[in-house]
Amino acid sequence: MKDYTSLRQTLHQVIFESDTRAGRTFDIVLFVVICGSVVAIMLESVAGIRERYGDLLHAVEWAFTITFTVEYVLRLACVGRPRDYALSFYGIVDLLAVLPTYVSVLVPGAQFLLVVRLLRLLRIFRVLKLLTYVAEAAVLRRALSASRRKIGIFLLTVLILVVILGSMMYFVEGGRNGFDSIPRSVYWAIVTLTTVGYGDISPQTATGQVLASIVMIVGYGIIAVPTGIVTTELARVGRPVSGQTCRQCSAEGHDTDARHCKYCGAAL
Amino acid sequence: MKDYTSLRQTLHQVIFESDTRAGRTFDIVLFVVICGSVVAIMLESVAGIRERYGDLLHAVEWAFTITFTVEYVLRLACVGRPRDYALSFYGIVDLLAVLPTYVSVLVPGAQFLLVVRLLRLLRIFRVLKLLTYVAEAAVLRRALSASRRKIGIFLLTVLILVVILGSMMYFVEGGRNGFDSIPRSVYWAIVTLTTVGYGDISPQTATGQVLASIVMIVGYGIIAVPTGIVTTELARVGRPVSGQTCRQCSAEGHDTDARHCKYCGAAL
Amino acid sequence: MKDYTSLRQTLHQVIFESDTRAGRTFDIVLFVVICGSVVAIMLESVAGIRERYGDLLHAVEWAFTITFTVEYVLRLACVGRPRDYALSFYGIVDLLAVLPTYVSVLVPGAQFLLVVRLLRLLRIFRVLKLLTYVAEAAVLRRALSASRRKIGIFLLTVLILVVILGSMMYFVEGGRNGFDSIPRSVYWAIVTLTTVGYGDISPQTATGQVLASIVMIVGYGIIAVPTGIVTTELARVGRPVSGQTCRQCSAEGHDTDARHCKYCGAAL
Amino acid sequence: MKDYTSLRQTLHQVIFESDTRAGRTFDIVLFVVICGSVVAIMLESVAGIRERYGDLLHAVEWAFTITFTVEYVLRLACVGRPRDYALSFYGIVDLLAVLPTYVSVLVPGAQFLLVVRLLRLLRIFRVLKLLTYVAEAAVLRRALSASRRKIGIFLLTVLILVVILGSMMYFVEGGRNGFDSIPRSVYWAIVTLTTVGYGDISPQTATGQVLASIVMIVGYGIIAVPTGIVTTELARVGRPVSGQTCRQCSAEGHDTDARHCKYCGAAL
Repeated sequence: MKDYTSLRQTLHQVIFESDTRAGRTFDIVLFVVICGSVVAIMLESVAGIRERYGDLLHAVEWAFTITFTVEYVLRLACVGRPRDYALSFYGIVDLLAVLPTYVSVLVPGAQFLLVVRLLRLLRIFRVLKLLTYVAEAAVLRRALSASRRKIGIFLLTVLILVVILGSMMYFVEGGRNGFDSIPRSVYWAIVTLTTVGYGDISPQTATGQVLASIVMIVGYGIIAVPTGIVTTELARVGRPVSGQTCRQCSAEGHDTDARHCKYCGAAL
Repeated sequence: MKDYTSLRQTLHQVIFESDTRAGRTFDIVLFVVICGSVVAIMLESVAGIRERYGDLLHAVEWAFTITFTVEYVLRLACVGRPRDYALSFYGIVDLLAVLPTYVSVLVPGAQFLLVVRLLRLLRIFRVLKLLTYVAEAAVLRRALSASRRKIGIFLLTVLILVVILGSMMYFVEGGRNGFDSIPRSVYWAIVTLTTVGYGDISPQTATGQVLASIVMIVGYGIIAVPTGIVTTELARVGRPVSGQTCRQCSAEGHDTDARHCKYCGAAL
Repeated sequence: MKDYTSLRQTLHQVIFESDTRAGRTFDIVLFVVICGSVVAIMLESVAGIRERYGDLLHAVEWAFTITFTVEYVLRLACVGRPRDYALSFYGIVDLLAVLPTYVSVLVPGAQFLLVVRLLRLLRIFRVLKLLTYVAEAAVLRRALSASRRKIGIFLLTVLILVVILGSMMYFVEGGRNGFDSIPRSVYWAIVTLTTVGYGDISPQTATGQVLASIVMIVGYGIIAVPTGIVTTELARVGRPVSGQTCRQCSAEGHDTDARHCKYCGAAL
Repeated sequence: MKDYTSLRQTLHQVIFESDTRAGRTFDIVLFVVICGSVVAIMLESVAGIRERYGDLLHAVEWAFTITFTVEYVLRLACVGRPRDYALSFYGIVDLLAVLPTYVSVLVPGAQFLLVVRLLRLLRIFRVLKLLTYVAEAAVLRRALSASRRKIGIFLLTVLILVVILGSMMYFVEGGRNGFDSIPRSVYWAIVTLTTVGYGDISPQTATGQVLASIVMIVGYGIIAVPTGIVTTELARVGRPVSGQTCRQCSAEGHDTDARHCKYCGAAL
């Protein structure tokens, strides 16, 4: 009985946690297997490959499904509250990752199940917790998190801008040349402002081209704003802060040239 | 009489100002309603939706119009000088936001009135004063305002550049391949320099492609300039340094949360 | 005689220099007139406008030509060595700005002369010396000048990269799908790397699309390099340098927190 | 015998090293010759030029081949272990740069050999060691090397993002409008996210256009991340701060050109 409990604990450490060597190895192997299964699904969606290597892909698919099934059962076995796990977001994703292959035996119809199987992609996020152990990812995440609100305001401004510019374009081009509704004109404005420029919709009248030029120059210019925000935050997060802790008030985060604690005035 | 005056004052606070809780709630509700009415107009411009849900959209439109009419009347009632408000920019916009629906009863012709109703978009700017209470927006606005002149000079340079490059392209491609006039060639130069690249006009001669390559590389490179300007200003504006000077050693550059001088330890 | 000399000097100050009030006013007026004449040439290149307003544009063209002729004669009159001026770069540009209109009286053939008249655009650079008096332009120019070599190295790397990638694409797509020669494939690589993306040439084979994806992601990533260079230089140029001058060695450019001259050690 | 050894040493210094004047001159000449031979191959790939100037290009090609052969023989002669050099990466590249022309005498078939000859491009990297002597290149290389891991994490995130977004698009557009397989949809997601936007594949359904708008805005926003990373690193690496510490007050952060401590004035 004790052995079984300690086995469950070890399994839990390996499968659910990443702070041991074995846990990290498991996560890396899982990452590779998920990537492999995603590549297999991608290849299966190509008509030419499906016709030629259909049998091979079918076998590979079953191999992945059995691997994931074993993993799912092990997760259920070692977790403290199996019911809670089974009903959690990742529990459902883990189930949906294996179910379609079994269902396909009963109900034929590859196309629809292919799409459900794509949910396996979401499992990659489970493995991405690995990145928390990489210091560089932490710096990036902290900088992006700090600039969250500023980027939100920027996106709101961009959204209002594309609605106004798109509507003006709908008016100027008079509903012709592909600008046949305001939502479509707003779509055009987004395509142009972000400098993507498909060219499937493009202004043909002189006024329209003048307005489009303004949209482009605005889009070319305001890309500076998110860039400036992220750069500033990255520079701030990455700023060299002294590792010293105040002996009096144990405050941290002192500048490297500080000689006294900025909170209590005690000498460092 | 006194009650009426205080009612007017309260109304004015709620409708025109944003520094009370009620005033901010009103602004947020107004923002949502304006967005809703803009979405309705956008949907109405889509032929397919207009045919199927025309009656529903008509009803929704009347609901928004009556809401905005009540708001307009309340604004007239509580403002100090109703005449000045009615003739101000926002007063006219507020009137134009409701008039078209009433006019459409007398004069049929949806297309033209749809365009006038789009002026409601301008009302969003009235609500955007809300953003002044968000510190992040203030930092962004100050940084953009500080880099105003530098960006102006940059845009002037870009404008001269696209006129010169566009004219050269008109000469090189000899008025063919879509480069049939200088303004159109300048339009192409803007499309290319801003890296939008629709592809509706593109050089076909070898010399034209060499010149176009130069335009692209220049455009790819000089986007660094506005980005650099905004980043530098954001870094300058956004650094939270207190204006305080230490009374003992007159050191500057203290953090905003510092309570003691970091050099000599004296209380700030 | 003395009056004539002083008149010449005054004229020289107004026309050639920009450090007096009159000189700057002259430059601004000249800038507006050059812009006006360039707009007139641009409009004349549009077939529709030329047909309808040809006579008006003809009259406007003569007005500009006479203005520039008077200016050219005044420049010749007030400059110290008229011969040197006439043979200098700007002297020739000034002459070429007026000659085509006179020639068009003798030799008909608008198209060719239109192109020569476009050289007037070069005259704008003469007026741009005005920008030297704008502090912001000076900061930008200094930052760009300081990052000159770094950007040169970056452009060289980009050039080698597009030749290699373009050649690989020519090999991969096998000279089909628009990739019919290496120079054309290099042109495609520039269009893609700079994220312009016309779409007139685009890979059709699977290998080609994989290679193109790499080109795009590389192009998307390395735009960070010029941006980083310019931002760093702008931040450095704009760094607050103390206005103090050392009393011993008269060195400048001390940091704001410096208490001694960093060159001779004397107290500031 | 001694003369031969010293000749070999001198040759080695000139050909393989770049720290002498002669060595650098040799590298610059080699760079020009390689560029010339690459241009010749590029021109030969253009059908029109090959037909008209085929004989001239043939002669030029032989001139380059003989030059490179002489260089190859000299390299073999002066290097310490000829066998090791011949089997090294650059040794094989040097051989492949000359072989195709000789083979073309025996086996006709220009197309295939053209491609092999393109390997000469790789020889440019040999000359690029020159750049190590340019301080600016060193700063750039150090900054890029320091941001290597952060950019790696960013690219991994972008890769996961395009797979997810591409798969969603394949599902949304239902395998039509060019989105006929997941790899192709992922290719579209890369084209859109990097703001290249060819327009050969573009969404036609309303849901697809909404999703595409999100992809564009995400792509427009996250370009800020690599830019921020490189800028921050460049700012850190590029700041010319001397490693010296003042012997009197142990202050740090002196400029590289400082001769005295800026805080206490002591000689450094």
